[in-house]
Amino acid sequence: MLRPILERRSVRRFTKRAVPENLLRIIARAGQRAPTSCGTQFYSFIEIRDARKRRAIISLLGRNQTLESAPVWVFICCDVARPLTMFKALKLDCHLGEVTGLLHSVVDASLSAQNMVTAAENLGLGSVFTIYHWKALREISRLLKLPNRTLPLLLLCIGYPDERPPLRPRWDLDLVLHKNEYASPTKKAILSNYRRANRTLVQMKYFRPDIQSLDENWQRKFATEEMALREKKLRMELQRRGFLPKRI
Amino acid sequence: MLRPILERRSVRRFTKRAVPENLLRIIARAGQRAPTSCGTQFYSFIEIRDARKRRAIISLLGRNQTLESAPVWVFICCDVARPLTMFKALKLDCHLGEVTGLLHSVVDASLSAQNMVTAAENLGLGSVFTIYHWKALREISRLLKLPNRTLPLLLLCIGYPDERPPLRPRWDLDLVLHKNEYASPTKKAILSNYRRANRTLVQMKYFRPDIQSLDENWQRKFATEEMALREKKLRMELQRRGFLPKRI
Repeated sequence: MLRPILERRSVRRFTKRAVPENLLRIIARAGQRAPTSCGTQFYSFIEIRDARKRRAIISLLGRNQTLESAPVWVFICCDVARPLTMFKALKLDCHLGEVTGLLHSVVDASLSAQNMVTAAENLGLGSVFTIYHWKALREISRLLKLPNRTLPLLLLCIGYPDERPPLRPRWDLDLVLHKNEYASPTKKAILSNYRRANRTLVQMKYFRPDIQSLDENWQRKFATEEMALREKKLRMELQRRGFLPKRI
Repeated sequence: MLRPILERRSVRRFTKRAVPENLLRIIARAGQRAPTSCGTQFYSFIEIRDARKRRAIISLLGRNQTLESAPVWVFICCDVARPLTMFKALKLDCHLGEVTGLLHSVVDASLSAQNMVTAAENLGLGSVFTIYHWKALREISRLLKLPNRTLPLLLLCIGYPDERPPLRPRWDLDLVLHKNEYASPTKKAILSNYRRANRTLVQMKYFRPDIQSLDENWQRKFATEEMALREKKLRMELQRRGFLPKRI
């Protein structure tokens, strides 16, 4: 019964087979079954099927094999707006500060998101989360007509798998699961863990041809200069959308 | 196969039966199988079994039936510290700004957290997420010996269920699942949705004896004054722990 969780891999290539709408509704319902603070459900799902909308999004994010091969995209959004509208309709004296709303909604949206990928797996579908759209948060939010206090957090791609990748390595459990208090790993444990993961990924041919190792891959993804730019953009956009105070 | 997801309820009362360590390890492994950005795994799990540590935590958070009846607690923590230590050990020129680290780690930790509750469900265990510790983030972080750039996000209680609560209501799917763009719900739809949820919860005797309705419950949980205090504390603690810039 644990198989769909313990053996799930992200799928990045999909067949052309369409995903029926009723399956997508089951997946969304599975998302809604995740725990949520006081039943508020600080999230919205935006299903993208319209060809014109897809083209507009691709033209913002650049061409991308994973996106283009996935028959369905779902933007999993933080949504503090709907619960606040509800509180107002009920004339409640309730409030949610920017950071409180950010934490509640990122948690709620992510818990739901994980239920959605497990449900997809159970239905024989493949899926992958992407954050390609973080580089164009403002434009994507406008395209999705997102009101203030909503945020497109994850872009979930769903479809029938056209690949069966191997299970990817994870940190040794003992470096992640602590007993009674946090124990910082030694440099030796970290490096031995790294070497094992890297060896496995090289054997799996996980990297693009121009990348030889996991550290190169991280260097590319988390390069200081690009990360500084991402941080600046994220901060500005979170402030603009009501998820960070204008001033701290 | 979808049952453990579609029929999961949070459990807040547990029997005295112990949870074997090997089951907890399976649950943690299930958490690790969640997708994670570039394999970084921005999370740590801290299992609390030690009686003295439990007492110290209870004395910080106040007596609480759910906590006290659960044989195992797991703090699911954001952890940007371990990946950064890894980058450093590998001499990479990599960086993660405060807000970028916050988003990545809250997403990663929450995706894992949801896998953990689904795995628990599959193993016949009950579970509930709580955030009681948000009111004492600083003291709890000190007690758990958490280094900078880690954050105790969710407190997961696990045990064998001593109750079988009914399935709680959720928003109508059509208010949550949007097509191609966000559609703000009408006030009428919101209120009719509220009335249905409230009716169901009253029938279920969901509320404490001194609370009559869902709006009263929300008013108590999200009261403007308390929320302003929570926001202030969260901001300060996130700044202190390296998850928000000192100045925006």
